Amino acid sequence: MTRLIEELAKLPGIGGKSAQRLAFHIINMPTENAAALAEAITNAKKSIKLCPVCCSITDRDICSICDDPKRDSGVIMVVEDPRDMAAYERTREYRGRYHVLHGTISPINGIGPDKLKIKELLGRISSDVREIIIATNPNVEGEATAMYLSRLLKPLGVKVTRIASGVPIGGDLEYVDDVTLTKALEYRTEM
Amino acid sequence: MTRLIEELAKLPGIGGKSAQRLAFHIINMPTENAAALAEAITNAKKSIKLCPVCCSITDRDICSICDDPKRDSGVIMVVEDPRDMAAYERTREYRGRYHVLHGTISPINGIGPDKLKIKELLGRISSDVREIIIATNPNVEGEATAMYLSRLLKPLGVKVTRIASGVPIGGDLEYVDDVTLTKALEYRTEM
Repeated sequence: MTRLIEELAKLPGIGGKSAQRLAFHIINMPTENAAALAEAITNAKKSIKLCPVCCSITDRDICSICDDPKRDSGVIMVVEDPRDMAAYERTREYRGRYHVLHGTISPINGIGPDKLKIKELLGRISSDVREIIIATNPNVEGEATAMYLSRLLKPLGVKVTRIASGVPIGGDLEYVDDVTLTKALEYRTEM
Repeated sequence: MTRLIEELAKLPGIGGKSAQRLAFHIINMPTENAAALAEAITNAKKSIKLCPVCCSITDRDICSICDDPKRDSGVIMVVEDPRDMAAYERTREYRGRYHVLHGTISPINGIGPDKLKIKELLGRISSDVREIIIATNPNVEGEATAMYLSRLLKPLGVKVTRIASGVPIGGDLEYVDDVTLTKALEYRTEM
């Protein structure tokens, strides 16, 4: 029982008390339900792997986006992790493909370019690829990674773009930080 | 005393209790300090007027920005109110001029284009003006006002731009709303 509570408490957002409540709930479950939960955990870990094309997580040989012939393979959006990819999929606006880096360049944390899926990205560049959209987060590491990738990709003759930083929709200029205001001005477009 | 509390409570962010506390503080002030406060209020209201050029508030004949020969008079940024202008001044990045609309087109609130300082903006368009940057807030009224101004200004042969909407600096794609993500993609720029 103590071990179960300890293991549950390691999950994000679950503290000691929540872990205890979950543990008691599991103890009171019918045996088959508890077995089903345990099996689901083991199987998920066993069957989930990285897509060999875009490096996103999948339980298939090739992920559903890379495998979809209707997605435009001429455009690749580079994201930090699968959650950012999921965020863009929710918008239902983007019809190209993705590439997941699994992190950003961060010398402080000892993460160099070799720890990211950059080799795999370079392997995907061909004459069919018209544009690489770099969609790393607009913070220090994300911008540094974007610059690094841009320098790497542009000599290969591919168009490299960066998603815009600016005032979020529904935002008020008065309450937006100075750097974002400056970026919104820099990224302005002709109407 | 009751009248003083009532008047103070009309100020934004000051409720009944705060008004009472302020009123008691004023009562206990030396007479000359109370007189100075009253005079400052009267004078501010008397001396503050709209700049005849950009329609911002000023206590001079022409506001300090319109009067500054070092500011680029070829670029005019159109904002909703003087607070948005102050926000862009804080960035110290923008070296052009401003035009303050004093609101946005909002049919629901009965605010039509004639209630805004649009006539004054049109009066400023000359061959010296290279660009009008529309910096209304990225919400429904702000976007509608931007579209209206764009249709009005473009036939005059002036370049009209819009500040970018996108992911704010330091923001995380995962937690940004769908419309902002879509705009960040739409406004992407070549690196």
